[in-house]
Amino acid sequence: MTDRVRSLERLFYPRSVAVIGASADPAKFGGRPVHYMKEGGFQGRLYPVNPNADEIQGLEAYAAVGDIEGPVDYALIAVPAALAPAACEACADKGVGAAVVFAAGFSEVGADGRRAQERLAALAARTGMRILGPNCMGTLSAGARLAGTFTSALYHGWPGPGAVAIASQSGAFGSHLLVLARERGLGVSHFVSTGNECDVDLADCIAYLAGDPATRVIIGYMESCRDGERLVAALEDARRAGKPVALLKVGRSEVGAQAAATHTAADAGCDAVYDGVFRQHGVYRAESVDELMDIGQACAAGMFPTGNRLGIVTISGGAGVLMADRAAETGLDVPEMPESAQRTLKTLLPHGAVRNPVDTTAQALTRLELIERCLEVMLDEGGCDAVSLFLTSVGLAEPIMTELREILPEVRKKYPDDPIVLSMMTREEDRRRLEALGFIVLADPTRAVEVIAALVAFGRSFRAARSAPPVLPEPAAIPTAPTERDALRLLAEAGLPVAEGRFPDKAATAAGGAIETVARVRRDPVFGPMVMFGLGAAGTSSEAVLRRAPFGVEEARAMIDEIRDRAMLDGGRGRPAADVAALASALARLAGFAAANAGTVESVDIDPLAVLPSGQGVVAVKARLARTRP
Amino acid sequence: MTDRVRSLERLFYPRSVAVIGASADPAKFGGRPVHYMKEGGFQGRLYPVNPNADEIQGLEAYAAVGDIEGPVDYALIAVPAALAPAACEACADKGVGAAVVFAAGFSEVGADGRRAQERLAALAARTGMRILGPNCMGTLSAGARLAGTFTSALYHGWPGPGAVAIASQSGAFGSHLLVLARERGLGVSHFVSTGNECDVDLADCIAYLAGDPATRVIIGYMESCRDGERLVAALEDARRAGKPVALLKVGRSEVGAQAAATHTAADAGCDAVYDGVFRQHGVYRAESVDELMDIGQACAAGMFPTGNRLGIVTISGGAGVLMADRAAETGLDVPEMPESAQRTLKTLLPHGAVRNPVDTTAQALTRLELIERCLEVMLDEGGCDAVSLFLTSVGLAEPIMTELREILPEVRKKYPDDPIVLSMMTREEDRRRLEALGFIVLADPTRAVEVIAALVAFGRSFRAARSAPPVLPEPAAIPTAPTERDALRLLAEAGLPVAEGRFPDKAATAAGGAIETVARVRRDPVFGPMVMFGLGAAGTSSEAVLRRAPFGVEEARAMIDEIRDRAMLDGGRGRPAADVAALASALARLAGFAAANAGTVESVDIDPLAVLPSGQGVVAVKARLARTRP
Repeated sequence: MTDRVRSLERLFYPRSVAVIGASADPAKFGGRPVHYMKEGGFQGRLYPVNPNADEIQGLEAYAAVGDIEGPVDYALIAVPAALAPAACEACADKGVGAAVVFAAGFSEVGADGRRAQERLAALAARTGMRILGPNCMGTLSAGARLAGTFTSALYHGWPGPGAVAIASQSGAFGSHLLVLARERGLGVSHFVSTGNECDVDLADCIAYLAGDPATRVIIGYMESCRDGERLVAALEDARRAGKPVALLKVGRSEVGAQAAATHTAADAGCDAVYDGVFRQHGVYRAESVDELMDIGQACAAGMFPTGNRLGIVTISGGAGVLMADRAAETGLDVPEMPESAQRTLKTLLPHGAVRNPVDTTAQALTRLELIERCLEVMLDEGGCDAVSLFLTSVGLAEPIMTELREILPEVRKKYPDDPIVLSMMTREEDRRRLEALGFIVLADPTRAVEVIAALVAFGRSFRAARSAPPVLPEPAAIPTAPTERDALRLLAEAGLPVAEGRFPDKAATAAGGAIETVARVRRDPVFGPMVMFGLGAAGTSSEAVLRRAPFGVEEARAMIDEIRDRAMLDGGRGRPAADVAALASALARLAGFAAANAGTVESVDIDPLAVLPSGQGVVAVKARLARTRP
Repeated sequence: MTDRVRSLERLFYPRSVAVIGASADPAKFGGRPVHYMKEGGFQGRLYPVNPNADEIQGLEAYAAVGDIEGPVDYALIAVPAALAPAACEACADKGVGAAVVFAAGFSEVGADGRRAQERLAALAARTGMRILGPNCMGTLSAGARLAGTFTSALYHGWPGPGAVAIASQSGAFGSHLLVLARERGLGVSHFVSTGNECDVDLADCIAYLAGDPATRVIIGYMESCRDGERLVAALEDARRAGKPVALLKVGRSEVGAQAAATHTAADAGCDAVYDGVFRQHGVYRAESVDELMDIGQACAAGMFPTGNRLGIVTISGGAGVLMADRAAETGLDVPEMPESAQRTLKTLLPHGAVRNPVDTTAQALTRLELIERCLEVMLDEGGCDAVSLFLTSVGLAEPIMTELREILPEVRKKYPDDPIVLSMMTREEDRRRLEALGFIVLADPTRAVEVIAALVAFGRSFRAARSAPPVLPEPAAIPTAPTERDALRLLAEAGLPVAEGRFPDKAATAAGGAIETVARVRRDPVFGPMVMFGLGAAGTSSEAVLRRAPFGVEEARAMIDEIRDRAMLDGGRGRPAADVAALASALARLAGFAAANAGTVESVDIDPLAVLPSGQGVVAVKARLARTRP
């Protein structure tokens, strides 16, 4: 953990909190944090600061932060924008560790605001006091009952303490997630909203939470990133710690990106780059709030399977088909049960389907031990890595639920490490009880399968985090105005097979039968050199997949596998299979070249990069390279 | 409405119901319908039939159905499979209008069961008594409190009467939908599960419900269809009646299709064909149970906009960005507000964003009339066809909700015909109250946008239903073994531009620059001749879009627009725009040719169908045609 990240300790675990601009009115912004912490029982010292009061909400008030005798770890700046910089300076003078500025009216409102925000940033840099915000909703730490926030979400009650951290660039959106967590009974470790990010940004928070013992899952909302390198480092920290990160990154569409720019005054950048970076560094990109919360909830169970074999048990064949469909679409395998397992199941379920999906039919509702036996057979003999069990609305039927309350804990005891998703409607208290046992409970059968696919992907990502980073080649000498021959020579020196001699066109002809692909390097302003790959000659395909350079051969393979028309590389219809191994190696080498020469190479275009039949390699037929302008 | 469809009247609106195999035990299959109808207050005559009892659950029992004095419209056959055929025969002898067979153990269990099922089918055909099932959960009509079902869904209470009909091939799945409807407070007109479909099938039910005054929306679950023509006719009936149809069609994946075949003993057919047919005939294909229910709920509000312009208002900028993203992905336009409207909004919201999405910021929470004004400006001056309003968790804050309970009905009164989706968390009773006013309430902002996109698509589909059906050409004389020349000549006679003379290869060369596409005709066992269209030469693209022949030019355009790489036809990167109008015309003509010669043409392959630059037409360069084997 860097010093920069470690310094956030005082934001997330302060022993003392000062509220600058504290109000006696618990409904006002300056009154809410005091009220929440008093009522909630904050486990630290709380100092209201207000020059016009001796006492605030029953607590001794101080005229200025400097008047507080003891140390102050964390200051909540609940004063209007115009007064915030001076308040921050007073905090820094006091030696406060971290401050949050709630007020809006900074870089999002024009030049004056931007200057005020720059003053805050400069103060943080000069003094080492970390500043969260401005234009944010602060923080919350459920375990310590720390409400470093004025969010109205706490009006309706606190979320319970738990494993899921919520990090959001938007305060209102983060609050929304906080309310959803509370309503679902999903335990929260910390909540943090970063707003305009004059100093502390989302990457800092993720990096801190990656090392935070109370946090096992990180979910968040993101509009843009200004420092790609630190974000990637934070994501890798989380991945190495085995903590899943799921983000709702908005701004995919043109209108959305425009709206995001208005909202946080930041350039959202190219959305496809985020897709590539997230995939590369193990982030689950949620498309909706519900999906984000489902993933958070499923990950909180803490089970990440080592394989992708899904067992499906249902009391309705229809739901089994639906789940099998979704499993196929999300890359899960629904393996046929071994013959012996099918025989066992057939004796239990003479009228049921036993191949997988297993359909117990309504028979199981009168003999619930059949469900237990099915799960045992699938996990013991069927080699399944996870099971989804569809029980329709039986959770609402008290006589059946009474029996299930006996049976399900037994199942859990026998298989403590296998994800079991119960897709059923239940009463709220039953759902929470089952979740406490480590079951994942999701009424919708499609979503039940989707979360299993996410858990499998996280498991794979955690294992991939252990592989060594790629070794970069030596930087090359890039000519001022590289010719096509220079480009091919430089690529050849970087280890890419290129068309020999001076006649790339002839080589192209000779390569006919080969599949034409395109590989490019482009510099992203946030994430640096990105490698893009697509099938087809230039302009014939609208799709490219992206990865941040550098990356290894395994990542290159994952990249290739993401291409929609991936099957084209497998041959068939009279075509031989293409040399995917050589293609992956070439892309990884291109990425190494791009990273090693990040300061001098502006762009590379290999078009076409011909992929020959399996075993015959690839060849860069034509290439262009542009040097960065000095 | 055909006689076949009209005869279902006695299934959905019986004045008298006999329960064959009625039981005194309300927990048994034969006891449940009696119990449900007695408790629920069935508005018709109810006759328990049981040779071993004089009285069942307080009602006079009959030894045989023939002993009942008055007419019997509908008989529920609640006896084991072995006794069901005889029971049906007795009902037919009595002149019963429709019977439902609950028991499993027919075609899904092998040859004996298949024979027993054929006996039922023959009985229905011979006598005109309609038979639902076997292996099904029967019907329910909420208005009349008719429980022609043993589903355990009613254990927990009846769904309220309402506009949504649920039609399902799977009984358990249909029951699941019924429980979900009740839990959401979604009113149901009828529920019907068709099971093995020995006689009454899903198409029959959809056709009947299309003409049923109580039903305004049809949602359903489908595994397979045996008679494509009747299904299409039913879907067109619904579309002409302005009733949306949303189906969860499972069996998309290989494992899923296999499981479906086990489940209903039917060949699920090629899934992509269903995609094409559904799009062509206005069916919304839901991918999950939640989505299906959301669509049903949104459609029940009965507003289908005439345009696709969406206004977005939020109290959190982040949610606005998220909704704008989803709008773009679902084909909705989020238009920038006219300058005058933006000026008006800016005076109301000096710190807000006013372009669209409109971000009121938390300011609106202290002045809720601002929300009303925003909606007015967007609908009056902004030309929006629908609005989504994100209010996060304010529905849980009683003081705010008190005000909204005053404001929102006023908004509704002013704009009775514009869909307004409220994306907010609410207490259950508030949600139901707002829905009763015609608002659509969906907590998840992404789903809020998705349902609006669905409503827009239904509106478009209802208008398209009014266009005249395409005129078919005269059938052609198809040679026994058509040569390529024959194929081109036949296509030319059908009005498709083909390469002239005997040298299609030269023509192909001449057409270079042109975009290569592929058009095919294949006969689907269920839906008959289907036209397939894809970009790229054979084997270079994995994607094809399908439509059932015949279809007109508008449908052909919709088909072309579905292609993933559609943008390739727009030109750019040095290419001219392609002649999409001529392409659409050619596909429509190919469809007409395929339909007119459905009995003699097995397949057509036009590969390539070269699309020339705009204004220059298309040309079928090479073609093959196979004749149906006699």
